[in-house]
This record gives sequence, C-alpha cells and structure tokens, in this order.
Amino acid sequence: MYYPEQITKLIDSFMKLPGIGPKTATRLAFHVLTMKEDTVLEFAKALVNAKRNLTYCSVCGHITDRDPCYICEDNHRDKSVVCVVQDPKDVIAMEKMKEYNGLYHVLHGSISPMEGIGPEDINIPGLLKRLQDEQIQELILATNPNIEGEATAMYIAKLVKPSGIKVTRIAHGLPVGGDLEYADEVTLSKALEGRREL
Amino acid sequence: MYYPEQITKLIDSFMKLPGIGPKTATRLAFHVLTMKEDTVLEFAKALVNAKRNLTYCSVCGHITDRDPCYICEDNHRDKSVVCVVQDPKDVIAMEKMKEYNGLYHVLHGSISPMEGIGPEDINIPGLLKRLQDEQIQELILATNPNIEGEATAMYIAKLVKPSGIKVTRIAHGLPVGGDLEYADEVTLSKALEGRREL
Repeated sequence: MYYPEQITKLIDSFMKLPGIGPKTATRLAFHVLTMKEDTVLEFAKALVNAKRNLTYCSVCGHITDRDPCYICEDNHRDKSVVCVVQDPKDVIAMEKMKEYNGLYHVLHGSISPMEGIGPEDINIPGLLKRLQDEQIQELILATNPNIEGEATAMYIAKLVKPSGIKVTRIAHGLPVGGDLEYADEVTLSKALEGRREL
Repeated sequence: MYYPEQITKLIDSFMKLPGIGPKTATRLAFHVLTMKEDTVLEFAKALVNAKRNLTYCSVCGHITDRDPCYICEDNHRDKSVVCVVQDPKDVIAMEKMKEYNGLYHVLHGSISPMEGIGPEDINIPGLLKRLQDEQIQELILATNPNIEGEATAMYIAKLVKPSGIKVTRIAHGLPVGGDLEYADEVTLSKALEGRREL
C-alpha cells in the first residue's frame, strides 16, 4: 500500500532472484527508476530473450542457442575425451583456461542423498548413453571438490570403469597463489597424497 | 565469446545495477534460465512498467503513478506540516510508522560539497516555492543523521527560519532496543544533550 503498485511488482520480481531480500530488491527497483529508458528496455528484452532463446544442448547439456551446441559441433575438438562438470558455468571456467580441447558433459547438479537427489535426477543417464554411442576413451571427472561432488565422481567412476574407459579425477591440492599456512587440513592432506616426483 | 550472446547481454544488464558485480550477475542470469517463462515475462513487464508509468510528484517529489501524488491529494492530511526527507524510501519509512499525518518534501539527495552537490542540485528551490505558495506552519527536517544530512538540515533551517516558519529537526539519540554499551560517542553525546525531564 505504501509504494505505487508498479514498483511493488518490480520489487517482488527482484525478490524472486537468489540472495536478494526485500531491502536489496527495493534498492534495485528504485535504481531502475533512475536508469535511462533505453537501458531498462534492453534489460527487459535481455530477460525475455535469454529465457526464450536459450536451451540446453541435447548432447552435452551445456547452455546454448542452437542444438547441438558449438562445442559438440566443433570438428577441431578431440571427441575422445569428455570432461564431466556439474554446471554450465563450469564449462565456461574450463573454456577460459584455453588448454582443454575435448568435449563436455554437464550433469546439472550432483548426487546428494541429503536433498534426495539421486543419479537419475541429474544428467547421468545421458552420460551413460553417450559412452555407448560415442567413441570416448577418457572421462575426466571435474565435479566440485566437496562432499556431493566427490560422491558423484565416485559413483560415475564405479559405474564406468568396468567398461574399460579411462576415468580420471582432477587433482586436489593447494590453489596456485595460495598460502600453505592458511590451507585447511583436508586440502593439505590431499596435496601431500597427490605429490609428484620432480 | 564463451557464453551465448543472449546470456552475455543479460549479465551485462544485471551488472548495471548497483552492488552487482560480474559473479553475482552471472549467477542471477543463470537463475533466470531456470525460472518459469511466465515469471520472467512478468519481471520484464514490471521493469518497463515501473520505468514508464512512475514519475516524481511535481509538488513533493515523492514517487507516484499520478501527479500530484496520493499524499499531496489527501484532504485528511494536515497540510500545515511538511516533513523534509532525502529519498522516496524515507517517505515510505515515515508512512509505515502510521503516526505522521502531514505532507512531505523529498529532496532527492543531500548537500555534499565533497561530491559537488549544492543546494540548487537537490529539490531545495522547490521547497522554498512551496513555503511561499502554501500555508505551511512547521517544517520537520528528517534528513539522515550523517554529515551531509546534518549540513542539509542546517542549510534549510538557516534559510527558512527568518520567515517565521517553525523549523524542527528529528531527535538524535539511542535507537530503541539498542545497547548503551555499544553506542558510539557522538550518539551518546547527542542523547545526553537531548535529554528530557520525566
């Protein structure tokens, strides 16, 4: 009742975004009023366009505006290696590195018994189908280095190994630029465990 | 290049909002993709509607969908008292209190020589015009209790007092529910200075 209806609706919309409560939503909504009309129209258009025109690649599950996505379509890529990640943002992180030239498989989540998320709820059946249909020689498990990510990696490894495909897990250890003094015990123990001869 | 163009544009739009950097913008943009299409359309509509249909009241400067705003139009209100605030959000804070029945005047900022904002840059000329045109008997200065807010209140008080209109400033002191032990020196000194007989 205190605000005009138009701004209440905008505040409500902002509040539907993750991590945005009533105070931040109000601040953002008021900021929109001070923006140029063109910028606001562009914002509205970007929202609708992103929602309407983007989909997930039917092969790898990455976010894309055409199906299959540009990575799956790219003939210069090594199609014998598939990197399994949890999220499309992880694909981008890998791509930014510019050192990986294989394909991806996006799980859209991780196995989490606590939240009732099993292997069937994430894109694991899709992965198994790819392993049958495509000529894949190595599966790199790049799920997050936390409990759910590890569990997911273990599950996939157990499932895939019998078929003879090489299954690897990205290394755990100290992040580059980090400080040994401030590393937690588990990371340090993993770093020691994964030591290599120089 | 890494993201499809549609999502890059959405990320850019989110980044134009205050306090939202590239990481949060990416997180929000990806969240939009998981939202229902209806919700996204509503969001887009709310953005455009708020920008197009809301304006500032030509009398008091409060945000409104009609001019003059519902507060200035309301005949049940005491039109002899005007409360001067910095921001439309301050009007809402006052209205939520449900104890004030006068009018408002929104300055849209505060005098800040450091940022080059003088009295002419905020809605002070509008206030002086109202003081001449309307039958105002009391001016309550409710600018923020910080350096800029105080300076603005002092400036207005100095300007208006000679005309015989009563000028008051909201009280400084300990916030209700606060703790004397944790109050800063300036607040405590103001609380002591503003003590009243019981």
